[in-house]
Amino acid sequence: MTATPTTETPLDAWRAYASAHERLVRHLAREITRETGLSDADYCVLEALSDAPAGRRRSRDLRVALEWEKSRLSHQIRRMEQRGLVARETCVADGRSADVVVTPEGRTAAARARAVREASLRALVLETLGPDRVEQLAETGALLGARLTRAAEDDPQCREALAADD
Amino acid sequence: MTATPTTETPLDAWRAYASAHERLVRHLAREITRETGLSDADYCVLEALSDAPAGRRRSRDLRVALEWEKSRLSHQIRRMEQRGLVARETCVADGRSADVVVTPEGRTAAARARAVREASLRALVLETLGPDRVEQLAETGALLGARLTRAAEDDPQCREALAADD
Repeated sequence: MTATPTTETPLDAWRAYASAHERLVRHLAREITRETGLSDADYCVLEALSDAPAGRRRSRDLRVALEWEKSRLSHQIRRMEQRGLVARETCVADGRSADVVVTPEGRTAAARARAVREASLRALVLETLGPDRVEQLAETGALLGARLTRAAEDDPQCREALAADD
Repeated sequence: MTATPTTETPLDAWRAYASAHERLVRHLAREITRETGLSDADYCVLEALSDAPAGRRRSRDLRVALEWEKSRLSHQIRRMEQRGLVARETCVADGRSADVVVTPEGRTAAARARAVREASLRALVLETLGPDRVEQLAETGALLGARLTRAAEDDPQCREALAADD
């Protein structure tokens, strides 16, 4: 598979990639909403809970995992609770703080959304790029992830950002 | 530069990359907010206007460029108007519909945010990945972009999504 470079400076090259990546992310979110009625925020919360033991996380841990602000998470959880996708329960460990738990309805919706997403990723990304380019991306992701971890360690403000409003 | 593949299936490989990309996007947005006070949404609007002739766009064109829903854009523009970053004026072409115009204050804020962003991208992405990986990413972006354009052309619902609420 060939591709013509369309860019000049390295910064332009990065921007060209980032712009395509953003289009993909928006396309996937639109497809999930169309097929399941879940917003992107709903899906992120359900995925973060479904991956946790017993489908349950402390509210604070969920917020750190999502990197959301406290007010955003509260608002989102309240709306998802009204729709029966999640429930709030007292934390079993300390009997005090709040756990967020995915309901059976939430699990069903998340599984449907995951299936839609995977089918789209196979058709749009994996088939388009092929295994070598996908493996290159994984390596690139590992380099970027390590660099970001280093940036967070070097920067106290960055480290503290997530702990600040709890 | 070496990088150890940490993934098993192509889908996992993509997820690993996408997760690092999301972390980067959030990191850049946090840095811009910290250094300039602009939210990510503010910055997106200012960039879309600064790139347009005379720093002005019809409200509808701005919405299509950002791929936002109408209510989200109205709300965002109202808040940015209150902070003096943009102004709403009657469209010069038809004397009827609304233009959104970046103010001198908006241009100054956008220029500062762009400088912060570029410095971060150089330090975190370009230096970390080196020119070959960045060029690979640009090619990958071109392939993904072409595939997404094809998906939008094949899917009437997707094509109509942006035109629907205007």
